[in-house]
Amino acid sequence: MALRMSLHVLTFDPGSSSLKFGLYLCEIGPKPGSGSEPIDIAHGAVERLGQADAGLTLVCGKKRRTSHVGDGSMVEALEIVLRELNAAVPDLGSAAQGSLAFGCRVVHGGETFCEPVRVGAAEIAEIRELIPLAPLHNRVAADVLETCLHHEPSAAVIAVFDTAFHRTLPAVAKTYGLPHELSAKFGLQRYGFHGIAHQCVSETLFSRIGPVDRLVTCHLGSGASVCAIKNGKSIDITMGMTPMEGLLMGKRCGDLDPGLLLYLQCVKGYAAEDLDRVLNFESGILGVSGVSADLRDVEKAAAAGNARAALAIDLFAYRVCKYIGAMAAVLEGIDAVAFSGGIGERSASMRTRICKPLAFLGLTLDDTANAAAVGPAPISAPTSRIAAWVIPADEDLMIARAVVNSSL
Amino acid sequence: MALRMSLHVLTFDPGSSSLKFGLYLCEIGPKPGSGSEPIDIAHGAVERLGQADAGLTLVCGKKRRTSHVGDGSMVEALEIVLRELNAAVPDLGSAAQGSLAFGCRVVHGGETFCEPVRVGAAEIAEIRELIPLAPLHNRVAADVLETCLHHEPSAAVIAVFDTAFHRTLPAVAKTYGLPHELSAKFGLQRYGFHGIAHQCVSETLFSRIGPVDRLVTCHLGSGASVCAIKNGKSIDITMGMTPMEGLLMGKRCGDLDPGLLLYLQCVKGYAAEDLDRVLNFESGILGVSGVSADLRDVEKAAAAGNARAALAIDLFAYRVCKYIGAMAAVLEGIDAVAFSGGIGERSASMRTRICKPLAFLGLTLDDTANAAAVGPAPISAPTSRIAAWVIPADEDLMIARAVVNSSL
Repeated sequence: MALRMSLHVLTFDPGSSSLKFGLYLCEIGPKPGSGSEPIDIAHGAVERLGQADAGLTLVCGKKRRTSHVGDGSMVEALEIVLRELNAAVPDLGSAAQGSLAFGCRVVHGGETFCEPVRVGAAEIAEIRELIPLAPLHNRVAADVLETCLHHEPSAAVIAVFDTAFHRTLPAVAKTYGLPHELSAKFGLQRYGFHGIAHQCVSETLFSRIGPVDRLVTCHLGSGASVCAIKNGKSIDITMGMTPMEGLLMGKRCGDLDPGLLLYLQCVKGYAAEDLDRVLNFESGILGVSGVSADLRDVEKAAAAGNARAALAIDLFAYRVCKYIGAMAAVLEGIDAVAFSGGIGERSASMRTRICKPLAFLGLTLDDTANAAAVGPAPISAPTSRIAAWVIPADEDLMIARAVVNSSL
Repeated sequence: MALRMSLHVLTFDPGSSSLKFGLYLCEIGPKPGSGSEPIDIAHGAVERLGQADAGLTLVCGKKRRTSHVGDGSMVEALEIVLRELNAAVPDLGSAAQGSLAFGCRVVHGGETFCEPVRVGAAEIAEIRELIPLAPLHNRVAADVLETCLHHEPSAAVIAVFDTAFHRTLPAVAKTYGLPHELSAKFGLQRYGFHGIAHQCVSETLFSRIGPVDRLVTCHLGSGASVCAIKNGKSIDITMGMTPMEGLLMGKRCGDLDPGLLLYLQCVKGYAAEDLDRVLNFESGILGVSGVSADLRDVEKAAAAGNARAALAIDLFAYRVCKYIGAMAAVLEGIDAVAFSGGIGERSASMRTRICKPLAFLGLTLDDTANAAAVGPAPISAPTSRIAAWVIPADEDLMIARAVVNSSL
C-alpha cells in the first residue's frame, strides 16, 4: 500500500489592501498528482492593510474571530494569520516537517510562467520584474511570497498564475496590431488574466454536465473579463497585456480608443502617469456613475432615478453582451455560458440584462431559476439551446489543488 | 411647370497626399431635396501632393489625361483640376452663375456638425478646431474648403461629414468607461467614421432588396470599420473618438490595451508623440506583416511562405469576424451583411475567411458568386439565412447627392 501523508495548504490571494487566505487539508500520495481533493478547514482575510485599523477575520467551522493587526504590514499580517490558525487548528502542520505548504495567486506570469511553480529568491525576482505589467497586483504577491519564505525558509511556496490558463491563446488572439519588432522587443501581447477563475468555472461546469465544446465564461467582479473556452482550453480573453483592457470594471476603464489617450496627452497636456491613475482608479463603473465602484450601490442610485448610475449599469451589461457575441464568432457558436464573480454570481438582474439580447443565439434564461440561483446552478430555460449556469469561481480551492498537484 | 436648372457638382475627397475628385451633372428643382440623381461626368485624382512629381489623372468618358501639377500645393492642384475640367467639359458651369457647386468630405465633424453644411470662414475655423481629433484628415479637408472659397468666393461649398451618419449612436455605444467629468470636458466619446460609406452601402442595399432591419456593413480598405445599422440608422461602429480604434488597418493598429500604451510610456520611456506616429503609420497590416500596408502585397508574400504576412491576413480577418459577432449581439441578430472598400469589394478570399466561422449565425457564402462578384452583387448561398452582398461605397456620389439636397 502506498504511503500517504496529510498536508495543510495555506492559500493567499493578495489584493492592493487586503490579504484573503484559505486553509485546506488534503492527503498526498507518493507520486505528484496523486493527492486528494483539498478540504476547506478555515478561511478569512486581513483587510485595510497598511492602515491603523487593519483587522483580521477568521472563519473556522462555525467559529468566527476578528482581531487587530497592528501596523498592518504584510509580514505582521502573515504572522498573525499563522498564529490565529495555529490556535484555531490544533493539528496544523509545520512547514519544517513538510506538512504545511503555501500557495499564492500571482496575477501576471508574463512569458516566463506557464504553470504553477515552487518559488525561491530567483522566481520572486522574476515576478517582481513583471510588476510594471500588473502594478496593482504583482507587487503584493511578490511581498507575500517573500514573507512566506522568510517566515518559513524550508516551506514549499507555490505561485499560481492568473495568466497561465491563457497560454493556449492562438496567435490571432494574442497579437496586437503593432510593429512586429516593437511587440517582440517588449513582449507586447495579450496575456489574459482571471485564468484561475475561468479554469475553475470551466472545470466545475464539466464536472456537472460533462465536457463542453464551446464555452463562454463571464467572470464579473470589480475586475471583469469574458473568456472563450474551446474544449477546456482558453482561446480568447477580453483582458490583454494588462488587466485594463476589455469590459467596464469597478474602477478600470476597459476598452478605449488609443487615439483618445494620445489626444489627451499630445493636445490636452496630460501626463501618462496621471492618466494611469485616472484609468485604473477613477474610471469604470465609478467614473461613469459618479456614485461608487460597487454595482450594488449603483443599482440603488439608478433605482432612485440617477441617470448616470443607470448609464453605468447599461454600459456594463452592453459590453459583456457584445463580447459574448464576439466570443461566439471566435468559437463558431456557443454551447454554454457561465457567470462567476461578485456581480456574475449575485446579480440576477445583471444576468438578465446581459442575456436578453442574445435570444437570437438560442440563449433563454429561466427567470425563476435565475432569480433564485445559488451556484453552481443552471439558470437557462429548458428550451434554451445554450446552457447557462451560475458557477462560483473558487480561486482559493484552485490554488490549493495546484499546490497538492505540484511536485513538492 | 416648375423651373429646373442644371448644376455641376465637383466633389473632393482629400487624403494626406492625394486629392480625389468627381464631377457630376444634375438638375435641381425650386425646392431643397427636389434635385435629380447626379450623373458621373468625370473623375480623377491629384497624387503625390507636395512632391516635385505631383501629377493629375482625369478620366472623362473614354478619355484619360495625365498632367504635371508643378509644386503640388493644394491651391495649384485645385486650379489645375478646374482648368482641366473646363477643357474636358465644354459646358462646365460657373460658380458665379450658381451652376457649379463644390462638395468635400470632412472626416471629423465633432459634436458640431450632424449633417452636411454650407461652409464659410466660421465653419472652416470650426473644422480646423477638430484637427487634433483626426489629424491625418481634417487639416487637408479644411485646406480644400478654404481653397474652393478663395478661388470661387461666391460658390456654394458644402462640407459632408464622415461622423454625421453616426449621430444616432445610443449612449451605450457612444460612452467610454471614463470619469464623466473628463468625458464631458473634452468631448471624449465614440463619434465613429466612414459614415458616408456605411450610409451609401445601406441605401444601395435597401434600393436592391428593400429595407433591412438588422444590417452589418464592413467597410474594409486602408482604413476599416464595421457598423451595426438598425432600420437604416447607425447604432454602433468600431471606430471611436478617432479613426484609430477597432479593426486592424493598413497602417493603424486598431484596438489596443490602454495599459499597454501607458506601459510603453511610464516604463519604457516612449513619448506620446512618437507612439502617435508608430500607431498611425507603422502598425496595422504593415507593422504585423513587415511587408506592406497593401493587402494585395501581403497576400502575395503569404502565398510565398512569409509567416508574418500570413499572420497579418489572419489577424485582419479574425478581428472583422469577431466584430460581426459583436454587432450581431448589438442588433440582436443579423439579416444582412455587406462588404465595401478596396479589400471588401475586391478580395473574395478575405470575404471567405471572414464569413466561414459565422455559419452558426446562418451565414453561408455562395463560393461561385463570391469569387465572381462585381458589386453591387449578392454573394450568399440560396440557403443562407443572412443575405451577404458586395456593395461599392461610392462616397463621391453620396457627397454630390448631399450637395444637390442641401438648400443652395
